[in-house]
Amino acid sequence: MVKKNLQRGYFQVYTGDGKGKTTAALGLAFRAAGNGLRTYIGQFMKGVRYGELTAAKQLAPTIVIEQYGKPTFVHPEQVTDEDIRLAKAGLAKLKEAVLSGKYDIVVMDEVNVALHFKLISMEEVLEIIDQKPDHVEIIATGRRAPQALIDRADLVTEMRQIKHYYTQGVQARKGIEK
Amino acid sequence: MVKKNLQRGYFQVYTGDGKGKTTAALGLAFRAAGNGLRTYIGQFMKGVRYGELTAAKQLAPTIVIEQYGKPTFVHPEQVTDEDIRLAKAGLAKLKEAVLSGKYDIVVMDEVNVALHFKLISMEEVLEIIDQKPDHVEIIATGRRAPQALIDRADLVTEMRQIKHYYTQGVQARKGIEK
Repeated sequence: MVKKNLQRGYFQVYTGDGKGKTTAALGLAFRAAGNGLRTYIGQFMKGVRYGELTAAKQLAPTIVIEQYGKPTFVHPEQVTDEDIRLAKAGLAKLKEAVLSGKYDIVVMDEVNVALHFKLISMEEVLEIIDQKPDHVEIIATGRRAPQALIDRADLVTEMRQIKHYYTQGVQARKGIEK
Repeated sequence: MVKKNLQRGYFQVYTGDGKGKTTAALGLAFRAAGNGLRTYIGQFMKGVRYGELTAAKQLAPTIVIEQYGKPTFVHPEQVTDEDIRLAKAGLAKLKEAVLSGKYDIVVMDEVNVALHFKLISMEEVLEIIDQKPDHVEIIATGRRAPQALIDRADLVTEMRQIKHYYTQGVQARKGIEK
């Protein structure tokens, strides 16, 4: 497929307590792949999302996904040095992806939560956004987007949960939610 | 890839005036493909979405997309017999996809809008949902989801526009929005 460039890239935020934030970013990467654009997706605090990893491999190198987390959840009351080290290393990779010229779209998946947990600093994230080349799109996902990111964003979408089967006792399902 | 089945399928609705409804459905199909699940996406009133068509072809037959519209927009004040004919033929294909056993996930893209424009009837759509096999997931997207669909849904997510660059005069961009 012929490599094309995005005419103009923006900074988008997907937030809210509803489903579909990471999923919308995946869908955007998928559609962009069909348009000849390349996407790098770096996922904070995730290490067991085999579904999206396997799917992305089929479209590599058009879509590249790297996961920066351990297979276990990070708890806000129990942040470890290892959690911080992994997140900082992830942010360095995201910065490289933004500046490399190799990607049209860079997704900072769950960066809002990584900021909320103080695994990384707002200054570091804003610095990457400030250095973004004009043709690169950056997408930040996760609940509780900090106001500083919302202020900086060109587009903010909130996914609101109106009705949810989790409240009926259904667990996250392999294939759909993970 | 080994074909797997979804353990239990639900009926989901993505609605609201924000971006990311169709995109989240595409992302869900993409992740599901990595988990060995098959998705059929039927798009009402769309006929020029080359990005997602091209991307889906790379993952065929795991993801199949068909577009039921003309390249031009349907206007609520100017619905033609042709618009209705195309939408009804599309709904018949969606019904076949749901009942065929070939797909784990069936996306009725923009069905909310097709209902709002009265291209198809609520009775026909609810009948398909009622006949859904247990292991099939159905996803309805589009603004202005009718209350009857929301009542019937297991999960409803509203994409809310908090801040949007369209208000800055930016048009939909090839590669990102289409």
